[in-house]
Amino acid sequence: MLDGIPDLKNMNEEQLNALCDRLRNKIIDTVMKNGGHLSSNLGMVELTVALHYVFDFPKDKIIFDVGHQCYTHKLLSGRADRFDTLRKLGGISGFPKREESEYDCYNTGHAGTSVSAALGIAMAKEIRGKDFNVIAVIGDGSFNNGLVYEAFNSVSEINSKILIIINDNHMSITPTVGSMHEYLETLSAENEQRAKKKRHETIFERFGLSYDGVYDGNDLHCMIEKLTDIKQKLRTQSVILHVVTKKGKGYLYCEENPQETHGISAGRVKSAEYSEVLGKTLTDMAERDGRIVAVTAAMTPSLGLSGFFEKFPERSIDVGICESHAAVLCAGLASQGMRPYYAVYSTFLQRAFDQVVVDVCSQNLPMTLCIDRAGISGSDGETHQGEFDLSFLSLIPNLTIAVPKDVDEFKAMLEGSADFGMPLAIRYPKDGFRTFENCGAFAFGKWEKLREGEDCAIIACGERMISLAMAAARAAANEGVECSVINARFVKPLDEDMLSRISSRHIITMEDNALIGGLGSLIDSYFCGGGKVIKNFAYPDEFIPHGSVKELIAKYGISIKTVSDYIIEHAHR
Amino acid sequence: MLDGIPDLKNMNEEQLNALCDRLRNKIIDTVMKNGGHLSSNLGMVELTVALHYVFDFPKDKIIFDVGHQCYTHKLLSGRADRFDTLRKLGGISGFPKREESEYDCYNTGHAGTSVSAALGIAMAKEIRGKDFNVIAVIGDGSFNNGLVYEAFNSVSEINSKILIIINDNHMSITPTVGSMHEYLETLSAENEQRAKKKRHETIFERFGLSYDGVYDGNDLHCMIEKLTDIKQKLRTQSVILHVVTKKGKGYLYCEENPQETHGISAGRVKSAEYSEVLGKTLTDMAERDGRIVAVTAAMTPSLGLSGFFEKFPERSIDVGICESHAAVLCAGLASQGMRPYYAVYSTFLQRAFDQVVVDVCSQNLPMTLCIDRAGISGSDGETHQGEFDLSFLSLIPNLTIAVPKDVDEFKAMLEGSADFGMPLAIRYPKDGFRTFENCGAFAFGKWEKLREGEDCAIIACGERMISLAMAAARAAANEGVECSVINARFVKPLDEDMLSRISSRHIITMEDNALIGGLGSLIDSYFCGGGKVIKNFAYPDEFIPHGSVKELIAKYGISIKTVSDYIIEHAHR
Repeated sequence: MLDGIPDLKNMNEEQLNALCDRLRNKIIDTVMKNGGHLSSNLGMVELTVALHYVFDFPKDKIIFDVGHQCYTHKLLSGRADRFDTLRKLGGISGFPKREESEYDCYNTGHAGTSVSAALGIAMAKEIRGKDFNVIAVIGDGSFNNGLVYEAFNSVSEINSKILIIINDNHMSITPTVGSMHEYLETLSAENEQRAKKKRHETIFERFGLSYDGVYDGNDLHCMIEKLTDIKQKLRTQSVILHVVTKKGKGYLYCEENPQETHGISAGRVKSAEYSEVLGKTLTDMAERDGRIVAVTAAMTPSLGLSGFFEKFPERSIDVGICESHAAVLCAGLASQGMRPYYAVYSTFLQRAFDQVVVDVCSQNLPMTLCIDRAGISGSDGETHQGEFDLSFLSLIPNLTIAVPKDVDEFKAMLEGSADFGMPLAIRYPKDGFRTFENCGAFAFGKWEKLREGEDCAIIACGERMISLAMAAARAAANEGVECSVINARFVKPLDEDMLSRISSRHIITMEDNALIGGLGSLIDSYFCGGGKVIKNFAYPDEFIPHGSVKELIAKYGISIKTVSDYIIEHAHR
Repeated sequence: MLDGIPDLKNMNEEQLNALCDRLRNKIIDTVMKNGGHLSSNLGMVELTVALHYVFDFPKDKIIFDVGHQCYTHKLLSGRADRFDTLRKLGGISGFPKREESEYDCYNTGHAGTSVSAALGIAMAKEIRGKDFNVIAVIGDGSFNNGLVYEAFNSVSEINSKILIIINDNHMSITPTVGSMHEYLETLSAENEQRAKKKRHETIFERFGLSYDGVYDGNDLHCMIEKLTDIKQKLRTQSVILHVVTKKGKGYLYCEENPQETHGISAGRVKSAEYSEVLGKTLTDMAERDGRIVAVTAAMTPSLGLSGFFEKFPERSIDVGICESHAAVLCAGLASQGMRPYYAVYSTFLQRAFDQVVVDVCSQNLPMTLCIDRAGISGSDGETHQGEFDLSFLSLIPNLTIAVPKDVDEFKAMLEGSADFGMPLAIRYPKDGFRTFENCGAFAFGKWEKLREGEDCAIIACGERMISLAMAAARAAANEGVECSVINARFVKPLDEDMLSRISSRHIITMEDNALIGGLGSLIDSYFCGGGKVIKNFAYPDEFIPHGSVKELIAKYGISIKTVSDYIIEHAHR
């Protein structure tokens, strides 16, 4: 029934409902095995089936905001047979992907882009004189993002009609915050619905959008009826359709635990997670230091900060999926003597780049960026890898960049950060496994030597790379080549004192980051013309697809063997 | 009367009105000599005087969004005696500057940050148990930016009250676009005012803000009365005060030409501006090629695109000050076969960093970023310099970065860009003076040699640096040292073919960009371990203040003399 592209348009209601059940089961089965986004996809089954029933894909274009909710669409567009490869290296992506199917017209991954993209597509349609429908599907969580507002402001400037569907399940990953969400709640409050609707429409009508709603979006019959109606309307006006769905619908555990089941990991490894250390350490610090404030953009639990938020409600704020705003808010706090900690995933920090440059660093305000999921983050693929942060941060004046080698060093960095007095970024991966012996006292800007050796110096940063470096050094030692291993725990500034004391001709750099602009580049520039032979191990100049962290690091040629082979070949006395 | 800090609170209305006249004259006199923002500041005189009369600065905190309207505030806070140094190297900044006065609590320069910053400051106030008022002043142009919406969504989450003043002069730099601005117009339409106000309040009340308005913000008496009122209100509620002012008020030429007099240049130099070439070339191309679309974020005339917009209304759009949205819109257009050209100032492109990475480059969509005011831009200072773009762009996979050596090469690059088929960035400064002789056929990714010489190779990019490089090479030749000069017209990819053929041991790089992550870094990495001696001329790791372009380039050690001295000292046979 799911093979090929199911002929929905010739199914009756009973068959369509049966299809929904099969889709739901397929999603649950696959995500339980492979990991992925569960609750958000379960809530969208009926809405997606109704869309495929009423509209004509791929002629009509659909853009899924963020893309956490596109599994049903993938299953209905000829990818069911490969769906068991979901999120695996070389397999089906967990996000919309143009390279995968003509049914995916626009790739997403970061919040709030769908309306802008839909407007671009609609504008192109008019210029080219084509005729098709353009639909953006956006969750109520993404709806907080400023991009949506910017796009709304353009709707009436563009001479074309689009459909925006708000999939309102009252959740980002955590429950959605903010006034816009409260507004959505009011709109869908059943007992007031009819009386108030007329008045409330105005906020969207201001933007040239006609408002309509389906307040049980998991009722397939209602959904189809409404969409059929709207398809006609779209000839003359842009429409915003507010659909209330149940996150996790059809799988009781998910319905009751939508937050925990938003994203599911394939296997669970017991690990000393950095996020846990962040939460504990910051909470301890905040008890003693009234200046400490925690700021997040809709990821509080996965960043390890739920405990902090419970304990210090006045000194914590989740601003919703608004990364730029969070950075400026921190700058405002810091300008008044607070010490804000902005915890954010590496890939999403890209959205606050300008604000980190202008608001935080050009004002030289003391705050700490706690950058989680740095380096390769794995199965979410291109739009979620954190391989650029060392590059886009190292170019910013006044910013110190720290990369702890393990959770203990991370804790020490956090403890030192409150009195650091300048902007600081600490970047770390999700999982922490290994605790190294600390070889010396900790000072900001100073590296440490973890191993001595005269033939080659390995300069590495971060737990993953230091682990590989130490193992490669041991492997090389077995072949008679002795390497020093240096923990470059600050990528900026470089520890020029230690660099100037490196006597070996051969130098290797290792980092969980793109080569361009990262640790290796900085060291290349430092030594340029100094007669050293330098080999940089880092990621090449390409976007990194989905796969496991281990697979991907190896794919890019960074392993104990590749590093030790290089050392043995080049640095042998 | 303007010396020191005038004692406004003891002035009567007549004296205050006389003060407004003096302030207005001082602003006109200074801007006519030094350049600066004229019309926006003239409109704000009464509002600022009223704010200083009613509130208690610096105890109360005021944040000026963008900061184009802070001159009166500067004149009233002890900086009148130094005001003739406005925008000069070492003088008074044209923007709020904490380093300059305790009356400036938060530096601005990019749009939309004031409400977020105000919320941060207010949150800090509550945590510290202090008592003062927090005021954000934002123009209707900035009000389009998504950051404002993100901040609005937080107003009710923060347990503090703030005042947001919309200074509505119906203009960004050009007339303000978008639905939100239309909404503001409706609110202030006098004949409907009383009847409609009640209903229209809701849009702001949704965000926990009480709406009030002064529809002649240049009437000092009304302003003082209203602000006195609101100061009381602020004890219990956050307020949005909609003030309509006349841009250019009090100077007839400005009132009639607010667009032309938004920013005034100190001296006018006849120059072949890049923006002019952009406009002309793109218009010509668009006549032949129906795929070409122009997108701007509120800067159409200064980017040279007014003519294009007039000629091709269906293929052009100004989205307002929404740099992120503009980039995604372009990606949407490109996904449907269009060839969008997004023209934007270098410093403002920082705001679309994530969208350039994710939406444009990770999808590998063919579009062209036309990056104006790249490199040092001069008198606007830290928040407007364009010294980072080569760094934050070179780390992005799939992106080609072009830097024309003159306007002719710029034209050729533009003409080649429509069929380039991948994301392309072209960066250039404001003024173009010199046309070099073209030494060879033009091909994407290929450099050209402008001068031969065996002792040293100078690799430079962009008109400013190539001019200096050629002059330095001639100066060195006079001392018997022969340099080649290479036009690195593509910073990415590097022309490895030409690099591999450089025979001289000494290499110099020159760029109008920060050292970290720029052309020099890429060349350092390329040659690392290759036995070359490389010297990088670029800007150091610090924010560049205001001053003239020429002064600033020299301040950072890049001049004919420094470069030729280095060559003569190091590369002499």
